[in-house]
Amino acid sequence: MAFSVLGVFLGLLLEVSTHGPSSGPRTSWKHEDVNLVEFSEPGVFNYSTLLLSEERHVLYVGAREAIFELSMKDVSVRKNKVIWKVPETHMEKCIAKGKSKETECLNYIRVLQVLNKDSLYVCGTHAFQPQCDHLTLKDFKLQEKQEDGRGKCSFDPAQSFTTVMVDGDLYSGTAYNFLGSEPIISRYSLSQSLLRTEYSTSWLNEPSFVFADVIREGKNSADDEDDKIYYFFTEVSVEYEFYGKLLIPRIARVCKGDLGGQRTLQKKWTSFLKAKLVCSMPELNFVFNVVHDVFILKTPDWRETVIYGVFTSQWGNVGLSAVCAYNMSSVEEVFSKGKYMQKATVEQSHTKWVRYNGITPSPRPGACINNHNRLQNISNSLHLPDKTLQFVKDHPLLEDPVLPIGNGPRLITKDVNYTQIAVERVTALDNNVYDVIFTGTDKGVLHKSVVYEGEVHTVEEIQLLKNAEAIKTLLLSTQGARFLYAGSDSGVVQSPTAFCEKYPTCGDCTLARDPYCAWDPQTSACVNIFHNQDVTDLSRLIQSMTGDADRCPPARRSAPEEYQVMVVKPGSSAELPCPLLSNKAVALWRVNGSVLTDEASKFHLLSDTGLLIYSVGPEEQGVYECWSVERAAGKDFSSLVAGYRLRLPVKPRSPGHLPRSSSSSASTS
Amino acid sequence: MAFSVLGVFLGLLLEVSTHGPSSGPRTSWKHEDVNLVEFSEPGVFNYSTLLLSEERHVLYVGAREAIFELSMKDVSVRKNKVIWKVPETHMEKCIAKGKSKETECLNYIRVLQVLNKDSLYVCGTHAFQPQCDHLTLKDFKLQEKQEDGRGKCSFDPAQSFTTVMVDGDLYSGTAYNFLGSEPIISRYSLSQSLLRTEYSTSWLNEPSFVFADVIREGKNSADDEDDKIYYFFTEVSVEYEFYGKLLIPRIARVCKGDLGGQRTLQKKWTSFLKAKLVCSMPELNFVFNVVHDVFILKTPDWRETVIYGVFTSQWGNVGLSAVCAYNMSSVEEVFSKGKYMQKATVEQSHTKWVRYNGITPSPRPGACINNHNRLQNISNSLHLPDKTLQFVKDHPLLEDPVLPIGNGPRLITKDVNYTQIAVERVTALDNNVYDVIFTGTDKGVLHKSVVYEGEVHTVEEIQLLKNAEAIKTLLLSTQGARFLYAGSDSGVVQSPTAFCEKYPTCGDCTLARDPYCAWDPQTSACVNIFHNQDVTDLSRLIQSMTGDADRCPPARRSAPEEYQVMVVKPGSSAELPCPLLSNKAVALWRVNGSVLTDEASKFHLLSDTGLLIYSVGPEEQGVYECWSVERAAGKDFSSLVAGYRLRLPVKPRSPGHLPRSSSSSASTS
Repeated sequence: MAFSVLGVFLGLLLEVSTHGPSSGPRTSWKHEDVNLVEFSEPGVFNYSTLLLSEERHVLYVGAREAIFELSMKDVSVRKNKVIWKVPETHMEKCIAKGKSKETECLNYIRVLQVLNKDSLYVCGTHAFQPQCDHLTLKDFKLQEKQEDGRGKCSFDPAQSFTTVMVDGDLYSGTAYNFLGSEPIISRYSLSQSLLRTEYSTSWLNEPSFVFADVIREGKNSADDEDDKIYYFFTEVSVEYEFYGKLLIPRIARVCKGDLGGQRTLQKKWTSFLKAKLVCSMPELNFVFNVVHDVFILKTPDWRETVIYGVFTSQWGNVGLSAVCAYNMSSVEEVFSKGKYMQKATVEQSHTKWVRYNGITPSPRPGACINNHNRLQNISNSLHLPDKTLQFVKDHPLLEDPVLPIGNGPRLITKDVNYTQIAVERVTALDNNVYDVIFTGTDKGVLHKSVVYEGEVHTVEEIQLLKNAEAIKTLLLSTQGARFLYAGSDSGVVQSPTAFCEKYPTCGDCTLARDPYCAWDPQTSACVNIFHNQDVTDLSRLIQSMTGDADRCPPARRSAPEEYQVMVVKPGSSAELPCPLLSNKAVALWRVNGSVLTDEASKFHLLSDTGLLIYSVGPEEQGVYECWSVERAAGKDFSSLVAGYRLRLPVKPRSPGHLPRSSSSSASTS
Repeated sequence: MAFSVLGVFLGLLLEVSTHGPSSGPRTSWKHEDVNLVEFSEPGVFNYSTLLLSEERHVLYVGAREAIFELSMKDVSVRKNKVIWKVPETHMEKCIAKGKSKETECLNYIRVLQVLNKDSLYVCGTHAFQPQCDHLTLKDFKLQEKQEDGRGKCSFDPAQSFTTVMVDGDLYSGTAYNFLGSEPIISRYSLSQSLLRTEYSTSWLNEPSFVFADVIREGKNSADDEDDKIYYFFTEVSVEYEFYGKLLIPRIARVCKGDLGGQRTLQKKWTSFLKAKLVCSMPELNFVFNVVHDVFILKTPDWRETVIYGVFTSQWGNVGLSAVCAYNMSSVEEVFSKGKYMQKATVEQSHTKWVRYNGITPSPRPGACINNHNRLQNISNSLHLPDKTLQFVKDHPLLEDPVLPIGNGPRLITKDVNYTQIAVERVTALDNNVYDVIFTGTDKGVLHKSVVYEGEVHTVEEIQLLKNAEAIKTLLLSTQGARFLYAGSDSGVVQSPTAFCEKYPTCGDCTLARDPYCAWDPQTSACVNIFHNQDVTDLSRLIQSMTGDADRCPPARRSAPEEYQVMVVKPGSSAELPCPLLSNKAVALWRVNGSVLTDEASKFHLLSDTGLLIYSVGPEEQGVYECWSVERAAGKDFSSLVAGYRLRLPVKPRSPGHLPRSSSSSASTS
């Protein structure tokens, strides 16, 4: 009964995916199409903790009740293995507490960190009673000096968890209790007692931890600032309200040198601060408010470091995933200068969070100790005044948000739920630097996308895992032969970062717009420019990041006489296949030189670009050509995909009539 | 690098559609399949204002620059028409203000209400300068006593708008200014000056008006309470916060007898209150926060009245629509007893809305005048104390929400955006009462759904409009022959509310589970039980709301000898069609009596349930039967859809070999 401007509003929402930097993959590779190496052992599951040691050329894998050492160059080569089971008594206790014998009361290895040159630090859920141990690399044996894993590793193998080892100290984001209800961001070190977050919803409110890593200040820091450990998670918002819980993505940080407070915040972080990590399209009022994974593209100077995150929306009932990128310098700006939020009581009984407009104590609450503080005789956090400590205890949340580069997503993909991200910065032959974004989905698919000026191009999608299960971990090796390692519940998969050799022609090699690939006219092959052994002289290679294939030499074409002969009985049908490599190309059929424009009565274009000809008669005989036409750099590029010569069989009853073509060939029908 | 419990959370969200009361339509009718009557005139557009006069048996239609009187029984019969254009001078002014000559500076009829027995009250946008007039029914002419339409009709034809006429007074929800920025809920009456809402975001905050109607108190009201006018709209939330605007569905009401205040709220509503209209799935944290249309299923006692609304989610980038139902008694409970919300200033500079916990003035702010007030010498709103008026001016929002029946949606549909709703309460032959929900989509499709105990069944979908455009208005006639009337930009469509005659067998008639339809074994037809002329003795009819077709007499089956003969040349292919009526049925093929279980090499089941047989040979000859198998009431019901006898042609060269079957029939290939 009423018109609605909401119609317009919702119409806009429908355009989110088209409006944003979105694109489907150009090429789709099946699991068996590409050169993947897999590892799994019968009876072992949950290969979700991966640790790459590029010096030792190995990949460590933490799975359920087992730790593996695999060859980095070929993960199917197992170098070592150690079993770590739960003793019977432990398991019984776990079962008695109501947990499942088959799935929960086992030991899931979730911490795998390099402790020193000779050993790894490993922790497992150990039947809901987390334990840690040292693993000697020489003999690949556990030292069996088991330590309490509380606060270092999660109790529940299904609960979100993140960890990072920095200078021998283990930083974790996990739950501190059996029920999983007490979230904690902690530091465990040999020399000091556990440093942790305050147990308060202002500090952490039902967080789902996603990632943590250190950002080094660098040697030439003027103020001799401290290194920082950044945490990424999604939590329930305290500052916003709605009916139902509102989730919010966060970036939090602590300082490496934090020792806790003297009286206030004893054995607690004095440097814990957090901010909102925005990934939204303000012009469409669309918010991606769940962060699933983060990758930090580190640079020698931290100011140039870029943080990449994959997001979905809390309400996105059908997959719409986004990738947002953040400059570390904007992050630093927010943490070092941002306004704080404050919990205020309204009308005696309501709690609301608002901007704090009062005077901020000095030193700035939550800031790391620097030379300026040291001049004031504050050489570590124990010397911080109570006023500063009390303030940061009550105001861990900053009001200023961390905004993405360009104020919106770099990439939006429809009908996909991204779970993992890895990014590699490569220099193409045009000497420009490109960030190549690898994203893993909950269905075992990998997307490879490149951000060009104002445009995203998804080079390819690869069915990385045999089954449609989630990619749980995604690692990238960047030295030597580049590989991606994906961990899932059922195994580990190793994949090259590019499939240049799969492009048969210069046109395909160029249209792929893959910064790893270029056409070598000398060998007539699409080669990986980072595999130095393949080509010594890069200058002869043909590459165009716009996909402009004009520089390609003309393709060698077989003469129509060499086309495959199809002998078809009169009245029956013939199917001429035309497999296109690119999802962005369209098939164009020429019959005896003329373009097949409309669906003539006897022709039917198949959905997979093949041509079906019904009840073939003498007039259907002739030369059939299928061309792939693809648009790039404002031009159409076409190439011959398949050619056929269709003819009726030689009639044995009338030997006087010979077919015009005398070449004989295999016949198909 | 991190596990995620959010994965689980989002997994749940993916289940919203399966979790809730959701179902696809059993039958799909195309536009040309069913008996629809259409009306449109060349050059006339936007047939979006419909008014049904069941006494006069006519449907009034307000379109762009024209008003029509159509026959209710056959809308293709135009009884009258009047043109109402904008004078040249008006149009020029409108164009000078920057509006479009082709679309905006025209007269869109948006108000069409019965004023009295002899005339209608009509208003149009009149080139962004709304005008109203009286339409004499006798000669169907405008009286040309044009009145200012400001506050009664919208300026902008594209802006949301609702109106209702109650006892000669026009109640509107619209914008009061040219820019459309000043929302207003107003009453225009001949005897009094315009009564309106305060211009304040606490009262109305960017509302999209959806529907308005009166709920009569009834004669036997103990307190002699006033009649109420309810408004439904979506607006931008003031009480909740997020980044980006949060929309919220509202129900608001005013009292019919309101005269405004004496000093405070002079010429403003003293009875305007609003509450949140919740349609959500709390267990999945999923909120449908945009209301698109409302239908009030009125009953003699208002306490039994049920309000139906169609909702989507603000973030639902792919359509997920829900229908929620509300008891009028719960609405009354919220408005008469609910807590108020209050705007509070926090830390000097922030405004937050919280529950008001103080003492509420008496009489209750926003309540209608009743006998209790009259005893206190408050006989109308002019006598209300300033304290009460000031309170309602500052506290128009109630904290308590109006919750749906069953605390969640009645119906959830995927991949659909519902725009309109109409509901009819019918008594089936089992003497139970069923609410039949008709929902119109933005693609011109109508869904007909019935709510059974704990289960929703969508009987059918109908492509009501020829083109995939939005259904803008949906009206239901309930007297005599029941019809639905849908208005769209391009015309008016009249549709029966049931298509019983389209079900050819008792099985189909029963499996449809349509409360309008029953099988008449005497005439072997599926009949509409509300068309009394069809059947006099209802007791002989077969109807089962569970879809149990066991009571059906055995279907008359043609003998295999009567099946259609298909003569197929050896080596060529044959396609045997099997059109299933029901989307919930599966096709089962029997070849010479045996079920075709797997896809044997030469058989290929087509997606539309037909069977394709490749290169037919002598062994493929025989009897082919296609059965429709559908599950209902815990049982499988099967019926023969098509039967064929496949044979090779009689070979003219070997007259000794005759085909086994000697019956000759039309041959198809």
